[in-house]
Amino acid sequence: MEKVTSGIEGFDKLLFGGFPKGRAYLIAGEPGTGKTIFCLQYLLAGAKLGQKGIYISIDEKPEQVIADAASLGWDLNSYLKVGLLQIIDVSNYFATSKLGETGINIDHIVDDILGYVKKVGAVRLAIDPIAPLVLAENKVPEVAEYIRKLIFAIEENETCTTLLTSYVPVGSINFSQHGIEEFVASGIVLLRLSKIENKFIRTVWVKKMRGTRIDLSEVSFEILPRRGLVLRQPI
Amino acid sequence: MEKVTSGIEGFDKLLFGGFPKGRAYLIAGEPGTGKTIFCLQYLLAGAKLGQKGIYISIDEKPEQVIADAASLGWDLNSYLKVGLLQIIDVSNYFATSKLGETGINIDHIVDDILGYVKKVGAVRLAIDPIAPLVLAENKVPEVAEYIRKLIFAIEENETCTTLLTSYVPVGSINFSQHGIEEFVASGIVLLRLSKIENKFIRTVWVKKMRGTRIDLSEVSFEILPRRGLVLRQPI
Amino acid sequence: MEKVTSGIEGFDKLLFGGFPKGRAYLIAGEPGTGKTIFCLQYLLAGAKLGQKGIYISIDEKPEQVIADAASLGWDLNSYLKVGLLQIIDVSNYFATSKLGETGINIDHIVDDILGYVKKVGAVRLAIDPIAPLVLAENKVPEVAEYIRKLIFAIEENETCTTLLTSYVPVGSINFSQHGIEEFVASGIVLLRLSKIENKFIRTVWVKKMRGTRIDLSEVSFEILPRRGLVLRQPI
Amino acid sequence: MEKVTSGIEGFDKLLFGGFPKGRAYLIAGEPGTGKTIFCLQYLLAGAKLGQKGIYISIDEKPEQVIADAASLGWDLNSYLKVGLLQIIDVSNYFATSKLGETGINIDHIVDDILGYVKKVGAVRLAIDPIAPLVLAENKVPEVAEYIRKLIFAIEENETCTTLLTSYVPVGSINFSQHGIEEFVASGIVLLRLSKIENKFIRTVWVKKMRGTRIDLSEVSFEILPRRGLVLRQPI
Amino acid sequence: MEKVTSGIEGFDKLLFGGFPKGRAYLIAGEPGTGKTIFCLQYLLAGAKLGQKGIYISIDEKPEQVIADAASLGWDLNSYLKVGLLQIIDVSNYFATSKLGETGINIDHIVDDILGYVKKVGAVRLAIDPIAPLVLAENKVPEVAEYIRKLIFAIEENETCTTLLTSYVPVGSINFSQHGIEEFVASGIVLLRLSKIENKFIRTVWVKKMRGTRIDLSEVSFEILPRRGLVLRQPI
Amino acid sequence: MEKVTSGIEGFDKLLFGGFPKGRAYLIAGEPGTGKTIFCLQYLLAGAKLGQKGIYISIDEKPEQVIADAASLGWDLNSYLKVGLLQIIDVSNYFATSKLGETGINIDHIVDDILGYVKKVGAVRLAIDPIAPLVLAENKVPEVAEYIRKLIFAIEENETCTTLLTSYVPVGSINFSQHGIEEFVASGIVLLRLSKIENKFIRTVWVKKMRGTRIDLSEVSFEILPRRGLVLRQPI
Repeated sequence: MEKVTSGIEGFDKLLFGGFPKGRAYLIAGEPGTGKTIFCLQYLLAGAKLGQKGIYISIDEKPEQVIADAASLGWDLNSYLKVGLLQIIDVSNYFATSKLGETGINIDHIVDDILGYVKKVGAVRLAIDPIAPLVLAENKVPEVAEYIRKLIFAIEENETCTTLLTSYVPVGSINFSQHGIEEFVASGIVLLRLSKIENKFIRTVWVKKMRGTRIDLSEVSFEILPRRGLVLRQPI
Repeated sequence: MEKVTSGIEGFDKLLFGGFPKGRAYLIAGEPGTGKTIFCLQYLLAGAKLGQKGIYISIDEKPEQVIADAASLGWDLNSYLKVGLLQIIDVSNYFATSKLGETGINIDHIVDDILGYVKKVGAVRLAIDPIAPLVLAENKVPEVAEYIRKLIFAIEENETCTTLLTSYVPVGSINFSQHGIEEFVASGIVLLRLSKIENKFIRTVWVKKMRGTRIDLSEVSFEILPRRGLVLRQPI
Repeated sequence: MEKVTSGIEGFDKLLFGGFPKGRAYLIAGEPGTGKTIFCLQYLLAGAKLGQKGIYISIDEKPEQVIADAASLGWDLNSYLKVGLLQIIDVSNYFATSKLGETGINIDHIVDDILGYVKKVGAVRLAIDPIAPLVLAENKVPEVAEYIRKLIFAIEENETCTTLLTSYVPVGSINFSQHGIEEFVASGIVLLRLSKIENKFIRTVWVKKMRGTRIDLSEVSFEILPRRGLVLRQPI
Repeated sequence: MEKVTSGIEGFDKLLFGGFPKGRAYLIAGEPGTGKTIFCLQYLLAGAKLGQKGIYISIDEKPEQVIADAASLGWDLNSYLKVGLLQIIDVSNYFATSKLGETGINIDHIVDDILGYVKKVGAVRLAIDPIAPLVLAENKVPEVAEYIRKLIFAIEENETCTTLLTSYVPVGSINFSQHGIEEFVASGIVLLRLSKIENKFIRTVWVKKMRGTRIDLSEVSFEILPRRGLVLRQPI
Repeated sequence: MEKVTSGIEGFDKLLFGGFPKGRAYLIAGEPGTGKTIFCLQYLLAGAKLGQKGIYISIDEKPEQVIADAASLGWDLNSYLKVGLLQIIDVSNYFATSKLGETGINIDHIVDDILGYVKKVGAVRLAIDPIAPLVLAENKVPEVAEYIRKLIFAIEENETCTTLLTSYVPVGSINFSQHGIEEFVASGIVLLRLSKIENKFIRTVWVKKMRGTRIDLSEVSFEILPRRGLVLRQPI
Repeated sequence: MEKVTSGIEGFDKLLFGGFPKGRAYLIAGEPGTGKTIFCLQYLLAGAKLGQKGIYISIDEKPEQVIADAASLGWDLNSYLKVGLLQIIDVSNYFATSKLGETGINIDHIVDDILGYVKKVGAVRLAIDPIAPLVLAENKVPEVAEYIRKLIFAIEENETCTTLLTSYVPVGSINFSQHGIEEFVASGIVLLRLSKIENKFIRTVWVKKMRGTRIDLSEVSFEILPRRGLVLRQPI
């Protein structure tokens, strides 16, 4: 099975080479655990190899994403100019309607995104986060069915490997908001921020990954300028 | 009472010979605990004995299942070709309608599956997972009644022994999503991934099994290339 | 007050002689704790004394009940033939309608059962489990009132002593699904499966029993071939 | 403030003399903790002093109450004959309608009870339990208002001192089902059954009592033949 | 900022002088923790200084309040006669309608209370408890807005300092029933009853107080005849 | 990336210079943890530098805010007079309608606030708290979408840096009432009041901050006259 390098220093080893190609993986974590940096680092790793990547920005405007990356020492603009990286600003879908209005057409957004990914031939995709594409749906009992179809639609493009970040409510034991994404996705990577003996420690843990052996260790990492996430050793 | 070998190394001993024939058992576990591998191993064990088996694939496409098995060193294709193994892609039922549409006819899917199982004379069946066959039903107070009828329908075919995998929400104390499957099924096998003194350990635990004595021990296992789940010793 | 022997070795001592006659008792426990075996043992104890008993089978078909008992070394058929034991297959009420249909007439089932019990002069009755007779009711706020009337209807037959098994959700602190059965029933027997220092131990605990003194000890037991539940000593 | 003796050996000391007269008190406890015996003992203590008492039986039929008391060595009949004790069988209100019917007129029951108490000049009343008089009400947001009015109606009769038992769900931290009774009632007595070092111990704890000093100690007690609840010493 | 003495021995020290004048404070606690005594003591302290105070009685009738105070050695009547203390019996608003009726006009009650407070020139007010003025409202999503307006209405009278008691469900971590009162009120005083090494201890803890420094210590207190709450030392 | 000084002694160090300019940050904490003081201190720091700031007062009237600040030794009036600080009294929006009325037009309030901020050229804004701008919305499934649009609207003004305080229910593990604000906001500052070995300690913890490195330490602080929050050292 073909593997896709994550670009995270030390992480591919946990996957025995990288992410199995053409599937969708959940990058789960509480706020502030590094999910967005994980995604950008993944896309940049591809761009450096000449692979086209697309970042779907839902909670931030593209300028904010670029500024945030710059504060880490990453120059997204050079890749944006040559088309190896694109940031699609889905926030517009949400922001243009009046505050009191609803009824955003999620299907339309998803169709637009996936069609565009195929059209430009992107092989790396990050949707950060996945929840807003689900929450606007207004019929609770069908959420499970909806998420299943959404991930099927994403995985239909077998040449593109996708990261989906998920909101993990603070202190929660779930990996996602609906508790269903984690079963349907082809893998789960959990990012955590723990307080051990009054020191804060960031860790990453591959909880599930179809189609490859995995190292179950929970590994600590740092977020460093220019290098982003850097794994250290199992804890 | 006739027993059916599980094909899991060391597991039949816990059941004093194997699964009592002709009933439906719950294989419960959090994501990433090995439920799908358990099912495939069960079906392959039958195929090697010349018994026909059917795998109902709901969260993955058949090609993904085959690729995942290949990454473990299992060649499903050889059994698929001779008809000793079949993978029915139920995902199509879910994926063909538009994202925003609902109303999948679950009855129809179940009738199709069970009719086909009988027609081809399969004696081993795995439905992985059972939840989507329930969740699409939109009337909550009738879920218990529905699950009862569903498992009755499955157990009506007394020559076929069935495994049903169930979503166990992370950190949950339930064995299934509705908390009812575990009472109606004829047995429960719980797969767990625990962190003991910073080491991760996989265990299997037979919690209930009608019609046979069982060993209540929780036994650790590994997932090994070509051999799949291999039980070691009680913990 | 007249007492009815339970047939469980060592158990009547906890009740200072047996179950007070003519009432309904809750046999509560998680799946796999031995509730069905408790019921069958109770009925067989009566049959051996020439007392007619009826087992209401809801989650299993009669043939399965008979096969399960046989696997324990109990030959139900000899008692079934002479009419000292009867298994009423209520599963048919649930199984005959199409999967998607609902609206089973519970009142009708209950009337049928209780009328039949009276007609044949049964003095021992086991309804295993009670929950499905409640759950199909679709109006939540009236569940408490419904359960009260159901247990009143059962206890109206003062010559028949009844066991009702209840689903205890795994890890739950309740004794029943609705948390009301335990107040209305005339007694509660709790079956548990605990893990103490990596060993599994089965225990029984009489939590409440109207009309008799009880021993509050939680007592361990084994399930043995031919003897069924056998109590050992308090833990 | 005038005090009413409880009749429970050792209990009045916790209340510095007894229950303040003319109010309603909650006797709270899980099933099997002795609430019914507490009520009967309270009524018998009055009867022995020539005070009329009424027991409202909701979960049991009068014959069952009498039989249960007899098993403790108490002869209720002698007091029933002379009218010092009456058992009103409210269960009939619940039992006469068909299983599937609802809509019992609770107001009517309460009016009947309170009118009768006044008419016969009873000074001790026990409603065992209070919950069914509330649950049949079908509008949740008004439950608090309803309970307030119900307890006001009961306390309007200032010559009668009333005990109300409340269902405490097993393992719950509430003192009543709605969590409101405990604020409106003039006092709370909590009965508990605890497991301390593998021994079971029954305790009583006065948590709140308007109009009198109280001893906050949690005191252990036994249930003994003829003497009923007998307090021992603080734990 | 002008301070108002609480009248609780040792308590004003925690507030660096007393309650900031003209605002509304939450006195929170489980049943039986002394909230009503706290309120009466606060009003009596004012009455002794010639300040008019009003006690809004919702869960008790005025005669009960007077009797309860008398049992503590407090003679409310002397202050009631001269008009320095008034007890308004709001229970009548709740008790006069039939049990099954609802729809009490809360707005009307609040208008009546606040208008009366202004008219008689009361500078101390206690509403015991606040919850019933909220619960009868039947639209849940607007409860937050309602509570905000209610407390605004109360604080509009800047010459009157108000105590509001709140129901804290037993074992709850909230300070009020809706979890909103605690944010809108100008201060929170929490009364607790804890079991420490088998001894019961009453404590008071000022959790929040706008407009003044506070001592964050949790201080133990006793309830003594004639003196009411008497603080001792921090725990 | 341009940084904005917080004005909190010792706090900017945790942010490696201050808040990244032009975004919205959540100041989260239970009642009484110092959120309002944090906001005022932030605005005063700007005013001292000649930067215009606006405080949106929702739970308190401007006079109360001024009085509370005065009790800390801060003279807001001098800045209010010269227009470097403005307090907008949103409470009027909530207080003017009758108690029983609802339907406040939140959109209108938000438009008014943001338009005014732009018009006067304010570069510091504090909305204390954010929740009431959300709660009055009556359609639960759309809350997530609404919060996203609200924060987008606030962050559209890139010259203004905004603090939003959030209600953290007591004892809760969430950082906000809806559990969504924390994902959409550009940063989270958590204020806590902990009891460690019977001493109360106030701490601040930067949990997330886009666009800058942060020190993850949880740092203790005091609230001192004139100086407000003063950080000490990591705990």
